[in-house]
Amino acid sequence: MPYYIGDVIQDENKLIARTPEKFRETGIEVLTHTRVTGVDTAKGLVEIEGRPSLNYDYLVFATGASAFVPDIPGLDLPDVCSLRNLEDAIAIKARLKEINARRVVVVGAGFIGLEMSEALTETGIAVTVIHKDPLPANRWDPALSSMMLEELQSHGVNFVASASASVIEKGAGAPLCVKTSQGDFEGDLVLMAIGVRPNVALAKSIGLKIGETGAISVNFAQRTSVENIYAAGDCCESFHRVSRRWVNIPLGDIANKQGRVAGRNIGGRPLHFDGVVGAQSFRLFGLECAATGLTEKEAAAAGFSPVVNVTWGNTMAPAMGPRKIGLKLVADRSTGRLLGAQAVGAAGTVGRIDALSVALWNGMNLDQVGYLDLAYAPPFSAAWDVIHNAAQALGRSI
Amino acid sequence: MPYYIGDVIQDENKLIARTPEKFRETGIEVLTHTRVTGVDTAKGLVEIEGRPSLNYDYLVFATGASAFVPDIPGLDLPDVCSLRNLEDAIAIKARLKEINARRVVVVGAGFIGLEMSEALTETGIAVTVIHKDPLPANRWDPALSSMMLEELQSHGVNFVASASASVIEKGAGAPLCVKTSQGDFEGDLVLMAIGVRPNVALAKSIGLKIGETGAISVNFAQRTSVENIYAAGDCCESFHRVSRRWVNIPLGDIANKQGRVAGRNIGGRPLHFDGVVGAQSFRLFGLECAATGLTEKEAAAAGFSPVVNVTWGNTMAPAMGPRKIGLKLVADRSTGRLLGAQAVGAAGTVGRIDALSVALWNGMNLDQVGYLDLAYAPPFSAAWDVIHNAAQALGRSI
Repeated sequence: MPYYIGDVIQDENKLIARTPEKFRETGIEVLTHTRVTGVDTAKGLVEIEGRPSLNYDYLVFATGASAFVPDIPGLDLPDVCSLRNLEDAIAIKARLKEINARRVVVVGAGFIGLEMSEALTETGIAVTVIHKDPLPANRWDPALSSMMLEELQSHGVNFVASASASVIEKGAGAPLCVKTSQGDFEGDLVLMAIGVRPNVALAKSIGLKIGETGAISVNFAQRTSVENIYAAGDCCESFHRVSRRWVNIPLGDIANKQGRVAGRNIGGRPLHFDGVVGAQSFRLFGLECAATGLTEKEAAAAGFSPVVNVTWGNTMAPAMGPRKIGLKLVADRSTGRLLGAQAVGAAGTVGRIDALSVALWNGMNLDQVGYLDLAYAPPFSAAWDVIHNAAQALGRSI
Repeated sequence: MPYYIGDVIQDENKLIARTPEKFRETGIEVLTHTRVTGVDTAKGLVEIEGRPSLNYDYLVFATGASAFVPDIPGLDLPDVCSLRNLEDAIAIKARLKEINARRVVVVGAGFIGLEMSEALTETGIAVTVIHKDPLPANRWDPALSSMMLEELQSHGVNFVASASASVIEKGAGAPLCVKTSQGDFEGDLVLMAIGVRPNVALAKSIGLKIGETGAISVNFAQRTSVENIYAAGDCCESFHRVSRRWVNIPLGDIANKQGRVAGRNIGGRPLHFDGVVGAQSFRLFGLECAATGLTEKEAAAAGFSPVVNVTWGNTMAPAMGPRKIGLKLVADRSTGRLLGAQAVGAAGTVGRIDALSVALWNGMNLDQVGYLDLAYAPPFSAAWDVIHNAAQALGRSI
């Protein structure tokens, strides 16, 4: 019988935990809130706290990632929290209500910090975001993350730039105070949203190969360095089709694909995971923010000679109204090959990054991208889309 | 000096006619409302009504297409019109105001008929659409065009299915009456929106090769069968990358690309037009409608063995709210290659067809499309997008 051992079973379609009983009906035994203390790979045994060990023919590591929290004093104070899974989200939501929170300090302006800023603002809570860099969302070009900053500020979010939190204390005017290099910021609750790290302690302890990224190394079948042990999701690496390196990109859609690939291979219907191109997105109030492929820096690290441009356009024919979009392209000077793209703008922005993700998947160059046949109609683009304009302009610059 | 001879110069970015004076500043002589009566290809002369002939080194046919109007009595009545260019649009708009139009009958439910139904409805005019088939937008799967019909009807448009107009007469309760096989329909204005045909009379008269589609035959440089004569836009053919046949798809984005390719080649900076995949879209009130590649019928005609499915999904994570999308895929049974896609749904539908257009451009198969890396975030898709679900389901069916 397959076993699932973990904290919570989340059915995304319902946003509720699927119960162990429900799983049992389908022949899967689910052990929630159960701790694995070790694995005996020679005997094929999973050792469990307070329970007899379990035999396995195949073992899957789907240990995910945990929120990374910097080592500063005050993290143990009440209402200093991080958000990683559904249980965290439910607890934070309940707690905000319980204490009738009016002000929240978010530390970090990556995906989670930005998405939470929006969610909190929309419930009427005043949000301060403390970020280490001058602009939010570090991987984005400053021209594009400036748009994000404007969007944050126009919705009343207080963005504190170039600030590092040194300590969290009890506040004078509110229960908590985050002291930073740019001043002190008080709130009813503090959310640490610095990033995540793959959970690999157990994998390491049994000698699974860990990749350079710090995540579990797998092959194209999601098999780890041990024959009958597989890994999937945020705890493991995936192959980046543009850089041709193994990366750790902790995103739900990649995890889903890897899980299915692992299952197919264990179940005897082989499937090869073709890898990723780094497509990702988030919404920030009225803005769609999306990126794919490599940044300039990542491209250079992979041995390309990156050239870049940022092109401004509209997500509909200009005559129908201004719907701003900014698109950055990264390409290789020697081959003209597209290497990456980032975009921020109105509705339709994510769709463009999806199209460019498919272009990256296939190794297209700027000449081809500049004349792609896209589904033009005035409500959705100009006759020359910002994709065409950007690719042609960058191509001319080479 | 380059000459432009035609009816109207449209600058899409301003939706106003760019004046001949403006063009003259850039060194281009523009002759509007000027009729070419013949071309002497041996001497390199364009013969013009009421003017001396013009010499040319290169000649470009950009004669576009004209609205096709069926041969029925009553087309010559006042306020029976068709819409093809900016001048038509301005004239129709002015006339609707002048006669204080309350009811309009649109004959044809293709792109133009449907877009006009929306535009007219939004100005408060009651619209009746008369269509030859049971559902609007013939190339779409009935499951998807049913959604279009619902959208039309929910906005008060009277859709008359399976009706053919036999005559247009003066009406009893309104100036005009369209008699059809499904009854008589009265209106203040009648818009004939059956389709368009390429304008090739002049091209034919000088012996340019006309393709099987009835449009001017060109090569990948947009050159016609005569050495120094080029063609671009709705009057000529383009190469379809999926069917590997020459087609005539009268769309503005293709025309723009071909124009630039022709200009580049004439100007001595060679450029090869890589062709089209048939991407197209239109908006219908709150629906995005888009398609790309081949229909089942077109695929069979091209020698493929088409398999199809229609998949329903959401353009955002279901937990965030229902945003219906229907996606039809067409693939080749023997190779698993994707051949076409059609989609109707909420915001984000066109972006998916764009992504699939890039997949078609590159000849991807269903296995690859089923695991594409797209920019997932809950406001924009489920972790498995409808693209993944559709491609995997169709792949399993082969």
